[in-house]
Amino acid sequence: MRATLMHGAGDVRSEDIPDPTLVEPTDAVVRVTAASICGSDLWPYKTLEPSEEGRPMGHEAVGVVEEVGDEVSIVKRGEMVVMPFAFSDGTCLFCHEDLHTECLHGGFFGNGGPDAGGAQAEAIRVPQADGTLFPLPTDADEALMPSLLTLSDVMGTGQHAAVVAGVTEGKIAAIVGDGAVGLCGVIAAKRLGAEQIIVLGRHADRTDLAREFGATDVVSERGPEGVERVRELTDGLGAHSVLECVGHDESTQTAIGIARAGGAVGRVGVPQSETMPGSQTAFFGNIVVGGGPAPARAYMDDLLPDILDGKIEPGRVFDRTVGLEEVPDGYRAMNEREALKVMVRP
Amino acid sequence: MRATLMHGAGDVRSEDIPDPTLVEPTDAVVRVTAASICGSDLWPYKTLEPSEEGRPMGHEAVGVVEEVGDEVSIVKRGEMVVMPFAFSDGTCLFCHEDLHTECLHGGFFGNGGPDAGGAQAEAIRVPQADGTLFPLPTDADEALMPSLLTLSDVMGTGQHAAVVAGVTEGKIAAIVGDGAVGLCGVIAAKRLGAEQIIVLGRHADRTDLAREFGATDVVSERGPEGVERVRELTDGLGAHSVLECVGHDESTQTAIGIARAGGAVGRVGVPQSETMPGSQTAFFGNIVVGGGPAPARAYMDDLLPDILDGKIEPGRVFDRTVGLEEVPDGYRAMNEREALKVMVRP
Repeated sequence: MRATLMHGAGDVRSEDIPDPTLVEPTDAVVRVTAASICGSDLWPYKTLEPSEEGRPMGHEAVGVVEEVGDEVSIVKRGEMVVMPFAFSDGTCLFCHEDLHTECLHGGFFGNGGPDAGGAQAEAIRVPQADGTLFPLPTDADEALMPSLLTLSDVMGTGQHAAVVAGVTEGKIAAIVGDGAVGLCGVIAAKRLGAEQIIVLGRHADRTDLAREFGATDVVSERGPEGVERVRELTDGLGAHSVLECVGHDESTQTAIGIARAGGAVGRVGVPQSETMPGSQTAFFGNIVVGGGPAPARAYMDDLLPDILDGKIEPGRVFDRTVGLEEVPDGYRAMNEREALKVMVRP
Repeated sequence: MRATLMHGAGDVRSEDIPDPTLVEPTDAVVRVTAASICGSDLWPYKTLEPSEEGRPMGHEAVGVVEEVGDEVSIVKRGEMVVMPFAFSDGTCLFCHEDLHTECLHGGFFGNGGPDAGGAQAEAIRVPQADGTLFPLPTDADEALMPSLLTLSDVMGTGQHAAVVAGVTEGKIAAIVGDGAVGLCGVIAAKRLGAEQIIVLGRHADRTDLAREFGATDVVSERGPEGVERVRELTDGLGAHSVLECVGHDESTQTAIGIARAGGAVGRVGVPQSETMPGSQTAFFGNIVVGGGPAPARAYMDDLLPDILDGKIEPGRVFDRTVGLEEVPDGYRAMNEREALKVMVRP
């Protein structure tokens, strides 16, 4: 089949690789109908060591179940499913706590691990199929596919940031970052009832979309000026809930700086440093900092009806669609911020 | 009156200073019957710049209200009260959220600020008396005074760590640090229903007391060995709730390292660095890090009955009592870890 492999920083190729097959009895093979390129794919795109064998890429997909192993009993052949970016057994103590990304038998797709095939391909092997795959209603409208695809990562990740940041009815939420996750964070904050939604970003086309998703204020300043501006917008107090959707030191410092005393920061941008800035600021403000890889699987039941009803349209974050042969150019376009988020249609 | 002033690192003196008087109509003057030296007083004891005027020290006290300003209506002259380490108006939005240490009109005693007199003295001016002072029952047993005094800081601080770390019935709590706050954290974790309580400390007399307070396990190893040991004690998973009661980089790293995925760290040790270690570890474990200066005032209503009933005895953390003239030696003894916590009886 055709698949996307990254052979080093900036070196993405569409290639022929063997078709995926069942390895464990708990596996399924899914034929991918839509996948996408993630902001987190841009990290290896900037930094991956060169290799001859290459790394299969992609961790977000919607597709049709093609084969199931002998121990797969929930997921059925022929079903349309969403594949979250992490696989999980659905039965361990962490899965029962809705923390599927900490599953004792889980892992992450497209990260180079032995069980972690790539979704930017014609098909993918899915370990722990029963716990991982989320069956879609048979009558789901094709026009909803982009939004359903966001359940695999960005919408669930925005939701996780909002949940961890404790967004509730009538509160002030601030979102640091205007990428696809930040925009989904706006949707999540609106959906959870935030009254004022401030988005920090400087790309007009993205912040315009943020406004359509429910943002009430846009702050284009960064660093101390951005903090100052958010404080002006919040009676000097800051936001109850801050969604950190970037992961850089500067954005983390900003996120903590704009949180109100006693507030919370939900981090979903993968932190690029092992030390976190703003530790004393967070401490003296009694600000809680939480978050991590989103248990996207856990949020699907909750988010699906709003997508089916058209109440939320996270699929609008896709502004480009490519075939498998054009995936390398999709990476280039996202890396150069020419595209916000790229959908892949194998 | 006699009072304690710090004139620089290691330079604590008992001196004559003017008696405190009412300045604002919301003030009270409290005659101190018992005060204490706090672990946090040892930071200026190690680092304070020399000064001629000196800084009035002490922020934990029990005493009798001697005078009240015209606008003080709740607190009465002659009442026995606990004075928490921070003053607060009791009416602002943060006080209403039980976050008195973030009060819009509040501040901290004994930190050198203009409204921040010291409690290691015969008397102290208390701003925002109605919001700050906590009246005690008239029949409170003198033998309970040490425990009641801990409501001013260490018991409330241990409680805050446990609350922020989300200690609940049947969970595993781990306490990093065997100082007075850590020991009160053990009491708080036990009181909130933790089933397994692991204390990390290496002073046998303190960890023995921790066991009497309810600790089920003691880990004397530090750093990666300490993390390893806690994991062994918790089926490899770590503790649901970790109370960080030290504030050093190493202890913070340990606290995050021993937290279970999806768990929480409640920090009450004042962080000595502006960057926090363990940021990625916390992120990939979806571990929440919260905490800050404890709203000791907010916890008094809840903790008082258990002290009056003898259910908890946090006053046992005091292992030395001195008069005002011996306070300098009290600092020395605590700094040299000869004493765990020193009570001051003016």
